[in-house]
Amino acid sequence: MTKPVVILVRPQMGENIGAAARAMLNFGLDELRLVAPRDGWPSAQADAMSAGALDKMSAVQVFESVCDAIADCHYIAATTARLREMNKPVLTPSELAETYASRSGEGQKVALLFGAERSGLNNDEVAMAHSIVNIPANPDFSSLNLAQAVLLVGYEMFQAQCAIEPVAEVDPPAPQADFENFFTRLESELDKGGFFRTEELKPITLRNLRTMFLRGDFSQQEISTLHGIVTSLRSK
Amino acid sequence: MTKPVVILVRPQMGENIGAAARAMLNFGLDELRLVAPRDGWPSAQADAMSAGALDKMSAVQVFESVCDAIADCHYIAATTARLREMNKPVLTPSELAETYASRSGEGQKVALLFGAERSGLNNDEVAMAHSIVNIPANPDFSSLNLAQAVLLVGYEMFQAQCAIEPVAEVDPPAPQADFENFFTRLESELDKGGFFRTEELKPITLRNLRTMFLRGDFSQQEISTLHGIVTSLRSK
Repeated sequence: MTKPVVILVRPQMGENIGAAARAMLNFGLDELRLVAPRDGWPSAQADAMSAGALDKMSAVQVFESVCDAIADCHYIAATTARLREMNKPVLTPSELAETYASRSGEGQKVALLFGAERSGLNNDEVAMAHSIVNIPANPDFSSLNLAQAVLLVGYEMFQAQCAIEPVAEVDPPAPQADFENFFTRLESELDKGGFFRTEELKPITLRNLRTMFLRGDFSQQEISTLHGIVTSLRSK
Repeated sequence: MTKPVVILVRPQMGENIGAAARAMLNFGLDELRLVAPRDGWPSAQADAMSAGALDKMSAVQVFESVCDAIADCHYIAATTARLREMNKPVLTPSELAETYASRSGEGQKVALLFGAERSGLNNDEVAMAHSIVNIPANPDFSSLNLAQAVLLVGYEMFQAQCAIEPVAEVDPPAPQADFENFFTRLESELDKGGFFRTEELKPITLRNLRTMFLRGDFSQQEISTLHGIVTSLRSK
């Protein structure tokens, strides 16, 4: 799969470039391009904020215009806070990630454009994109900083990239026979302790108990712990 | 729908608390709790970094322990970078968001625990949670800062909030304080019965027990049934 390229357009603070680089590498993106960075490049502030990410990524490329920066790309998505009146598809980050997964699978190079800190992308730049990416957020407090926008888009790309398998497995529940065995013992011990007020209510109470204990999905190890608990409580 | 509570445990830098608050409000989360913040509370650094978020949120509450901070919550998820050897479900942020959407639809209060900047949550704190949340990231560069972890979890919550309607039917779990109360009693009764072989192993055994019993998601009624079981088993 071809990895997407992140393009920061007229970024101002070196710190923000560094934080964006860190967010990129967190999700395995390692190709960063800059269009006309205000304070030039390289940047000591960017290095410091990247927490080592810039050293591990491909060398950052600097371009004079968006047009140059996207020349070798096949699909361009423009991240914007405001929605524009342009007849382009507006995607959520997760929809973009799906688009990316299928296009990059075909060998296409996908570029993600992010505008300057305050001003964002201008209309001509947005017009160069195939789609607009809009991050759904609290309408009363929607301002995300540059690195956070990069983080969220990178996160969604990363989810799409690896078909996500569970990170760790919980122990499997014990075979039902082990559970029954414990449950039978519990019933008999509760009987001795006078737990069931009346014979009439006993079946209902037992059903409720069974429901409770079944919900635990106890493993074999845990069933034997439960036996230990009963033994311990019955002692003396 | 009940909104989730974000709990920062022993946060160090006020700046990080402020950045986390901003990330929360970006996705509509407005209840922040702090456990033992290193530099006290309120914090001028936090105010500055929150970009106005702290003023718009509910007043931040400060607690001395995780136990106190989660007392009124019904479901606790612990965000950790390292996976622990605990028999708890490990969720991605989007799986957590689904869980949250269905539980909050039933009126349950969901709490998200985030540990201190470097050290994270300790094992006893993780043990109090029903599930562990792990953010899948680049294994070679996985370190996210606190605000970014909050941002990603908040983002997924926000996506899920709109989508899923409540499942309902099952009794809601008891508030965490009821569970603690039962668990404390169980521990003391097990002590009397000689359940814990050595003082050394006791903390680990208790963590495992807690994990088992938390999985049951017991309602108030069921917690009182558990008390009844202990009483009955202890009787001669």
